[in-house]
Amino acid sequence: MLFIDRLIERVIATKNPSVIGLDPLLRYVPENLRRVAREAYGDTARAAADAIYHFNRQIIDAVYDIVPVVKPQLAYYEQYGHWGVEAFFRTALYAKERGLIVIADGKRNDIGSTASAYADAYLGETDVGGETAERAFETDALTVNPYLGIDGIEPFLANCKKFGGGLFVLVKTSNPSSGQFQDLALQSGKLVYEEVADLVDAWGGGDGLVGTYGYSSVGAVVGATYPEQAKALRARMRRAYFLVPGFGAQGGKPEDAAAAFDISGLGAVVNASRSVLCAWSHERWGGKFAHEDFAEAARAEALRMKAELTRAIKS
Amino acid sequence: MLFIDRLIERVIATKNPSVIGLDPLLRYVPENLRRVAREAYGDTARAAADAIYHFNRQIIDAVYDIVPVVKPQLAYYEQYGHWGVEAFFRTALYAKERGLIVIADGKRNDIGSTASAYADAYLGETDVGGETAERAFETDALTVNPYLGIDGIEPFLANCKKFGGGLFVLVKTSNPSSGQFQDLALQSGKLVYEEVADLVDAWGGGDGLVGTYGYSSVGAVVGATYPEQAKALRARMRRAYFLVPGFGAQGGKPEDAAAAFDISGLGAVVNASRSVLCAWSHERWGGKFAHEDFAEAARAEALRMKAELTRAIKS
Repeated sequence: MLFIDRLIERVIATKNPSVIGLDPLLRYVPENLRRVAREAYGDTARAAADAIYHFNRQIIDAVYDIVPVVKPQLAYYEQYGHWGVEAFFRTALYAKERGLIVIADGKRNDIGSTASAYADAYLGETDVGGETAERAFETDALTVNPYLGIDGIEPFLANCKKFGGGLFVLVKTSNPSSGQFQDLALQSGKLVYEEVADLVDAWGGGDGLVGTYGYSSVGAVVGATYPEQAKALRARMRRAYFLVPGFGAQGGKPEDAAAAFDISGLGAVVNASRSVLCAWSHERWGGKFAHEDFAEAARAEALRMKAELTRAIKS
Repeated sequence: MLFIDRLIERVIATKNPSVIGLDPLLRYVPENLRRVAREAYGDTARAAADAIYHFNRQIIDAVYDIVPVVKPQLAYYEQYGHWGVEAFFRTALYAKERGLIVIADGKRNDIGSTASAYADAYLGETDVGGETAERAFETDALTVNPYLGIDGIEPFLANCKKFGGGLFVLVKTSNPSSGQFQDLALQSGKLVYEEVADLVDAWGGGDGLVGTYGYSSVGAVVGATYPEQAKALRARMRRAYFLVPGFGAQGGKPEDAAAAFDISGLGAVVNASRSVLCAWSHERWGGKFAHEDFAEAARAEALRMKAELTRAIKS
């Protein structure tokens, strides 16, 4: 089944367009989990990575039945070296076993031959010299950066078709300086991100990419922090499903995120990371949760986010 | 010492502005090395990664005294999963022990908080909960993508200052479709990559970034396949050292690469990957080298490249 159809069907089944961003820092992990890892591996990157994996497992166990997607952010794993990348591998595998869709947030980009290696790593398989190829990571989709143009994108499109993977191309990002290049006005009359949007939507129209609901496995990253642009892009891009970061800790509100949805309530998934992973410490819960209760708090916050988003999308 | 001064001093000491790209595919590795790994780990990603590490070691041993820099491309390691990333870690460490400067080619990019994690991974250190922080990878510099603007770049600049690291920001890439976004004409009269070039050069002018030779630790990626643009960018960017991909297998010629240099013969380093790693099989050598002699062939090719570049830069 196409990635986009799997995604939409899980969103419909859970009645929830949320993505939980698994962007853990060591300080998010409570002392009880850190102690276990430290006793096994000392004060090392290996111990930090192991503690983070077990933190992620508890988050996944707490939300897998109410949330359709998780999105581990590769940077947070790479900072712990290859041990961190192993924790990412184990996290993706466990999320997959629990039935979640896994979007690797790596914003990868390169020339064609190198993009092929990334496409095989996150959306395909790699020849390891044996009888069969191996999957490097059990991820369903990847975020990519469009600055190199179509020949850095084609290898990803090929693997979306061949292996049923998905892609989210950066169009309008959620950070304060996103306009520095993305909002520049072109002689054609478009802004840079509008030109990117038109091409991304066209790339997603190829054979074997558009699914049952009319959306494509080639989506777009559109920040919740720019709701007017999100609304205009939703009207402009016919096929691209939106991955919407910037909700929660970055300042995006439910009504901002709602701008990315279509009239049938589809068209986007909305990510929150810190606000869920660190929900236990938020003043909203008035000290109800201890640090060790982070997973219970994450579930409560995920349900609250679902309710808020659902209300905002309907109105 | 600043990254840029370390880089230039090694270029001067070796009289060689070459970078060897360590972008290995399993099929580049001769059967004798693959057999050793297979006997230890079977037909697995772990064996593939181990074979690639030993391949890299032989390349490094063959060129460390005649070449200033190596540039492992992260995609080629990530495709073998966390085992591949461990091979990258070991490769960077070994190259460093041999005195080489190591540029991690990852084209990373993200919002500020996430860019901080990448900056710590490749240009800094990570808190692992112990008494001291750990380096995730022993790399000296990183390639990054500018699409998110300055607040995705600032964490890298901070680590360049704090840890003496370097940065190469994509300006004009070497691939055929690089113009699709990079060459768009802005209402300001500039092209997109010219606007990027001007900002990258400005970013590199901050305190603690400009070294003894007037160049900055914040450099630019400018493809050898676009020599006219490279020449214009060399005149336009006062401080940015250029990392020039696209030489050799991608089609860039010595006189094309020479466009990226200043009149004193500095200002750029030129990367070749496949043409060096697979030199043994090139018709140029008329079957002189067997596959097992790949490292000897790589040295011969690296010396040939040095001579060609030196001649082209002088003329």
